[in-house]
Amino acid sequence: MNLVVIAIALGLVAVVYGFFTSRQVLGAGTGNARMQEIAAAIQEGAQAYLKRQYTTIAIVGVVVAALVLFFLGIIPAIGFAIGAILSGVAGFIGMNISVRSNVRTAAAAQSGLQQGLTLAFRAGAITGMLVAGLALLAIAVFFLWLTGPGGHAPNSREVIDGLVGLAFGASLISIFARLGGGIFTKAADVGADLVGKVEAGIPEDDPRNPAVIADNVGDNVGDCAGMAADLFETYVVTVGATMVLTALLLSGLGDLLMPMMALPLLIGGACIVTSIIGTYFVRLGKGSNVMGAMYKGFLVTAVLSVPLIWLAMHFALGDMNTVIGGTNLEAIDPGAPPSEEGTASILVFSGWDLFWSSVVGLVLTGVIIWITEYYTGTNFRPVKSIAKASETGHGTNVIQGLAISLESTALPTLAIVAGIIVSYQLAGLMGIAYAATSMLALAGMVVALDAYGPVTDNAGGIAEMAGLDESVREKTDALDAVGNTTKAVTKGYAIGSAGLAALVLFAAYTTDLAEFFPGADVDFSLENPYVIVGLLLGALLPYLFGAMGMTAVGRAAGDVVKDVREQFAGDAGIMAGTSKPDYARTVDLVTKAAIKEMIVPSLLPVLAPIVVYFGIFLMAGQENAFAAVGALLLGVIVGGLFVALSMTAGGGAWDNAKKYIEDGHHGGKGSDAHHAAVTGDTVGDPYKDTAGPAVNPMIKITNIVALLLLASLAA
Amino acid sequence: MNLVVIAIALGLVAVVYGFFTSRQVLGAGTGNARMQEIAAAIQEGAQAYLKRQYTTIAIVGVVVAALVLFFLGIIPAIGFAIGAILSGVAGFIGMNISVRSNVRTAAAAQSGLQQGLTLAFRAGAITGMLVAGLALLAIAVFFLWLTGPGGHAPNSREVIDGLVGLAFGASLISIFARLGGGIFTKAADVGADLVGKVEAGIPEDDPRNPAVIADNVGDNVGDCAGMAADLFETYVVTVGATMVLTALLLSGLGDLLMPMMALPLLIGGACIVTSIIGTYFVRLGKGSNVMGAMYKGFLVTAVLSVPLIWLAMHFALGDMNTVIGGTNLEAIDPGAPPSEEGTASILVFSGWDLFWSSVVGLVLTGVIIWITEYYTGTNFRPVKSIAKASETGHGTNVIQGLAISLESTALPTLAIVAGIIVSYQLAGLMGIAYAATSMLALAGMVVALDAYGPVTDNAGGIAEMAGLDESVREKTDALDAVGNTTKAVTKGYAIGSAGLAALVLFAAYTTDLAEFFPGADVDFSLENPYVIVGLLLGALLPYLFGAMGMTAVGRAAGDVVKDVREQFAGDAGIMAGTSKPDYARTVDLVTKAAIKEMIVPSLLPVLAPIVVYFGIFLMAGQENAFAAVGALLLGVIVGGLFVALSMTAGGGAWDNAKKYIEDGHHGGKGSDAHHAAVTGDTVGDPYKDTAGPAVNPMIKITNIVALLLLASLAA
Repeated sequence: MNLVVIAIALGLVAVVYGFFTSRQVLGAGTGNARMQEIAAAIQEGAQAYLKRQYTTIAIVGVVVAALVLFFLGIIPAIGFAIGAILSGVAGFIGMNISVRSNVRTAAAAQSGLQQGLTLAFRAGAITGMLVAGLALLAIAVFFLWLTGPGGHAPNSREVIDGLVGLAFGASLISIFARLGGGIFTKAADVGADLVGKVEAGIPEDDPRNPAVIADNVGDNVGDCAGMAADLFETYVVTVGATMVLTALLLSGLGDLLMPMMALPLLIGGACIVTSIIGTYFVRLGKGSNVMGAMYKGFLVTAVLSVPLIWLAMHFALGDMNTVIGGTNLEAIDPGAPPSEEGTASILVFSGWDLFWSSVVGLVLTGVIIWITEYYTGTNFRPVKSIAKASETGHGTNVIQGLAISLESTALPTLAIVAGIIVSYQLAGLMGIAYAATSMLALAGMVVALDAYGPVTDNAGGIAEMAGLDESVREKTDALDAVGNTTKAVTKGYAIGSAGLAALVLFAAYTTDLAEFFPGADVDFSLENPYVIVGLLLGALLPYLFGAMGMTAVGRAAGDVVKDVREQFAGDAGIMAGTSKPDYARTVDLVTKAAIKEMIVPSLLPVLAPIVVYFGIFLMAGQENAFAAVGALLLGVIVGGLFVALSMTAGGGAWDNAKKYIEDGHHGGKGSDAHHAAVTGDTVGDPYKDTAGPAVNPMIKITNIVALLLLASLAA
Repeated sequence: MNLVVIAIALGLVAVVYGFFTSRQVLGAGTGNARMQEIAAAIQEGAQAYLKRQYTTIAIVGVVVAALVLFFLGIIPAIGFAIGAILSGVAGFIGMNISVRSNVRTAAAAQSGLQQGLTLAFRAGAITGMLVAGLALLAIAVFFLWLTGPGGHAPNSREVIDGLVGLAFGASLISIFARLGGGIFTKAADVGADLVGKVEAGIPEDDPRNPAVIADNVGDNVGDCAGMAADLFETYVVTVGATMVLTALLLSGLGDLLMPMMALPLLIGGACIVTSIIGTYFVRLGKGSNVMGAMYKGFLVTAVLSVPLIWLAMHFALGDMNTVIGGTNLEAIDPGAPPSEEGTASILVFSGWDLFWSSVVGLVLTGVIIWITEYYTGTNFRPVKSIAKASETGHGTNVIQGLAISLESTALPTLAIVAGIIVSYQLAGLMGIAYAATSMLALAGMVVALDAYGPVTDNAGGIAEMAGLDESVREKTDALDAVGNTTKAVTKGYAIGSAGLAALVLFAAYTTDLAEFFPGADVDFSLENPYVIVGLLLGALLPYLFGAMGMTAVGRAAGDVVKDVREQFAGDAGIMAGTSKPDYARTVDLVTKAAIKEMIVPSLLPVLAPIVVYFGIFLMAGQENAFAAVGALLLGVIVGGLFVALSMTAGGGAWDNAKKYIEDGHHGGKGSDAHHAAVTGDTVGDPYKDTAGPAVNPMIKITNIVALLLLASLAA
């Protein structure tokens, strides 16, 4: 039992780090009165959004919790509540820190680049550690309670259902937060640009634009609150799925059962320590290379995680050569690749195999970060090619951007495939599960890199609106350009880990199926046309979901345009700069629109497995229905991986191509190439911030609903 | 044997129709001297392209034929040569008719809309009937020769390998024609627009633009020659795969073997008759509704095909209640759904089941046409929404277009899924094969609708360049707007049929595998991670391929821009209208660029199965390598279906949104909305004419190479 307690202690370390660092950050100077005024407006808008968003989510959450209680019982319902509430808390605190750090970063940037970087990164790190810490605490405390006072065996159905309920709660909040946040941020951004830059001819972040505060609120709503909920969910689902798989697959572990169930938690705890250490290495070198500073921090975390994960495993298993396997063992040969026959339940591997699988996850994280930087950084061919194509107009900019977005799926896919093969060869499905777990264990550091983005983005906006010196704006711009890449990195990382987690979740589905319906002879072979039907329907989901997300942004942005036009028409003093626009009115309008628009697409992944099950059941019987739903789960990752990767990398590349031109290439600001690049950036906005990132929680929801469907059909 | 002879006779009917109709079309008036001069330039350019393209293809073809001969023997090599040569012939003749009909259509439009429609549609119908007729003749004559003078049993390995070789020849030409044509047409189009409309400020189809003839040549190169090769390939592969599946799956047919092998050919022959009848019903009603006229023709063909397919089946099988099945029959119950156990080889169905499966294919064709019209026609929400979004700028036009392109995948996928389920329930895999066969049997009519497009597009260009009366241009515009939709229809139809054919090809792969490697225990279950690896790698192919295609267009268009700038700079008389630009030089340049650019992406689907096989073989052994390659084949359709559908429908919608605005909506020509719509159209160009349509032959090539790989590994 003490292993879980250690994990809990390490989770608490993250929370304590968050507490003290936030006191540090909030203690920093807040600049002049004008800056404070603008920051207050952003804070107020963020507060208004959060209040309305969480009210809506709470209503949906209570209804769903009641359904979970009715169909699945009290333990999954409690798990659901814990997952949902803590996910909300992580997003709420992170966003509150973020909207308070923006003005402080702008103020710190007045002293120097390093000062600005430190403040913005610390702010991001708070969110990062809270996400990882709270996610770890959620699983560990719940597991401790279920197996201790609850009196359930670690691999009992109650624990499994509880963990699935927890994952469901986290996922449901996550999809709302991602979609609602994504629609808010891009509706405000696109709307503000259209009516400001295009119609009124005023620059971005001009305080005369009534949508400018909504735009700044949106950065936090999408990239901080939305992303925090997303990674919280990914963490809970991945670590939870590894534990569920341990319980389901390895049924004859004996004394090793408890350590093996706790091991994923311990790995999470170990990496919290390395992440915190890593944050202190984010420092500029001689060259003022901001991205390099970030890399230093990440690299320290990743490298330190190798011995710490080894330590955690050694501590849990006693001996790294310990042979671990399922009940139906036929041969014990830890050196050989896992043998399999019929089902995946015959597995043999050693502690070392798990360790190397975890290393695969760490390496994969690094590789995905590197690939994403290549595709979205301003120093490499992809972004430069889009900038170059902007010279010949809007059309060629968009064509080149789309080509890059299609191309950007190749290397991550090959890396994920390599990760799957290597970790599977090491320890079968458990190897894949451990690779995914160690990927997610780095979440604290990765989220820190991401949550840094909206802080610097806002800091730039505040510097502009408060009319700070050009040299300050240059510093915030330098910080912000890196933010575009780190934001893309996290999304690539989240969807990449989903590629591994999908296999684990599918294994959970098949083993659950075998347990709940022992008589069912479900044919998951590609030779079964219902499997193809499931794959096609699954692959369709991200397309349909993406279409809904993009259209929602268009509609909501249209509302913003109308509102701003009305404000300009109603008060000529706004454009003259003599009277203040009604920022709150626009924020309120975007909030309402975003919340209204997020409901229908969120239902898509919830309903899809249920509709497919009953549809195929009616036409071809239960066994084919189970096969089709299983294939749906893999179809949604096979389709969704590419949609998400292409959208997030493509969007980041468009954004930075614009920045590259603004840095003076191809004619610089105001040139024809720049106009074309602005179009590309606008197109990339809903790609990278609305539709693309929401695919990750969508994949998880589909999987978890399928597991819940099995449980409720069996009940 | 006489069944095959009947099919050959019906194939000859198509060729005879083509011969007489082309005499009719070529006998029509060619307008004034200016028109003839322009038409001659287009013809000359087309000739130059065809010569160079076919020379390159011939070289590649000879090399590949030698490889086929070496690895697989003489019969597959002969099949390869027949497929390759006849595919080339269909494209060559079709394109020659097309570039001669354009000026005649412009001349006929001077007399009236009906006259223009009749001429353009007849021209399209010639290509259509030649594609269907030559494809049918290729298979039927080759089959007749192999089973007659060749002395091979209808289901012998020689016949199977011969048919696969035939399909490979057709596919290889098709991917070159599609990609080369697609790159040519869009490089010329985008290049001409960029340098003409955007830089020089002269209208589209202005004779002063040196790239204008290349643009007009491109319409024929892509939508006539490329499309003809594509549909020839789809026809040969689908009908051939149905025959191969019959030979492999139904091994105990006795007297029914020959009729069952010949039945797909007979269905093809029957639908040539109904297609020819249908062409005579393409007539305007009272409302001058061009699309309505097209529909009438298609509907007559589809409805007449129902009794004719029945007749063909009744004639071939003797009794529609005849029970057909494989050797390992356990129960004979034609009313029950097909029973299966372990493999797909236990199949029982009646003639009626095959008949209704064929009807499923006819209905599916109609449904896909209707859905495509909804997404690309100017009368419906999707196109109107893009036009509306153009009001707020380039960015929102592109966002809405991308949203529509994502959305447009949903209904076709659901229709295909429904088609798979219903036909499978009727007659198992043979049901799916017959649904695909009857879809392709309508190719004559569908290609007629498509090949009509470039004729009217060119006719409009000639009318503009020759300065014909505005009323004539109005008529050619009305004909052309429908062309955009019918061009999208064919692409949706081709990729939709690929969705069904993919299952048939996969079945051919698995049964071939069982025959060649009887000892191999290949696990195609989704529980096998190498299957997931295959699915992911397969789904990646269309993304990578699309990226290559789009980048190629960008590069080649850049070359065009440079050339045109040089011509303008070298001779000021060109812009003044006093001297003629060097059209041939631009055509030559685009030709060279297109041929250079098509090679690498074409190799992708050829090499992918081979690389995946040997890669996985080295890491995880032969059985997993076979599983991964099999999954690759389905991954490429699961990924490719969506890429192709979204690109072709999205591109068509963008094009028609521009047309809709040009018709006077949202400010009409020259408005800001129009500029935005031009951007969307430019973006859609490589989507719908280069990357999207080439996905269909790419899917087939991957499948056929996998079959050839099995054969050569076993040899």
